[in-house]
Amino acid sequence: MVRVFALLSALGLLFWGLGQTGGTVAYPQGYRTWTHVKSMIVEKGHPLYELVGGLHHIYANEKAMQGYRANPRVFPEGSVIVFDLLEPVVGNHAVVEGERKAVIVMEKDSRRFARTGNWGYALFPGNSRTPANIDVNSCYECHKGAANTDFVFSVYRP
Amino acid sequence: MVRVFALLSALGLLFWGLGQTGGTVAYPQGYRTWTHVKSMIVEKGHPLYELVGGLHHIYANEKAMQGYRANPRVFPEGSVIVFDLLEPVVGNHAVVEGERKAVIVMEKDSRRFARTGNWGYALFPGNSRTPANIDVNSCYECHKGAANTDFVFSVYRP
Repeated sequence: MVRVFALLSALGLLFWGLGQTGGTVAYPQGYRTWTHVKSMIVEKGHPLYELVGGLHHIYANEKAMQGYRANPRVFPEGSVIVFDLLEPVVGNHAVVEGERKAVIVMEKDSRRFARTGNWGYALFPGNSRTPANIDVNSCYECHKGAANTDFVFSVYRP
Repeated sequence: MVRVFALLSALGLLFWGLGQTGGTVAYPQGYRTWTHVKSMIVEKGHPLYELVGGLHHIYANEKAMQGYRANPRVFPEGSVIVFDLLEPVVGNHAVVEGERKAVIVMEKDSRRFARTGNWGYALFPGNSRTPANIDVNSCYECHKGAANTDFVFSVYRP
């Protein structure tokens, strides 16, 4: 009995520990063939410029697409949303796509990311597959502004 | 013998007729979940502004993706490429996606579209599924500028 209790306590501590440390979000392999949700250019002077200035495209895996289409909007476990941030190149009466600034990722996993609204966050600078050291709590704090739509701001453009 | 000859002649005339009139390009059902190739904004003052001014995204079906990845670049039969043209909405230090101006389509079929470089062209205004009456020869004349890349100007952004 004491042993079972000790084992359960140890397991409890283990899971609590995992919950506390959270997990990491993997590089979203193959996201360029996922569904393109929408695009936007954030210019100098915009409140988000320092954070995500540039031209971004949002891509969603199949599970995330279920979430975008659901009403009310709840994303299933395993949903991954990619914010592909590029340098806009302006000139000759056109804006074209320049270098990649970052690949920013949200992944839904209520076990690993319970502390940040069931979503994990990661940022891969440029074309790197190695995540930068970011404060995921600041991601979470800002995304709370979209708590009514499961912490996702973007809306799918049909 | 005379009958067989007459029949063959009639068939020949029929196919010649089909070749001459070409075919029509269908609305690209489901293209929004195809692969996003690249994007661009064509602004006032650009030589293509009158024709395709606005924010466009290019989407490719799986066969067309084979073409984009091939070297030299030849697109297989059945390739479909969509030019999704939206009104860019500029303001508040951002550019967002407005109304759809048109869905423009290229479809490769060397039988139906032999007269225009093996590609057929169609334009669906706004969100309409009914094609506009366009001069496909002018599409072809312009796309001859990309004859070296099988009449496709766009390059896939990895």
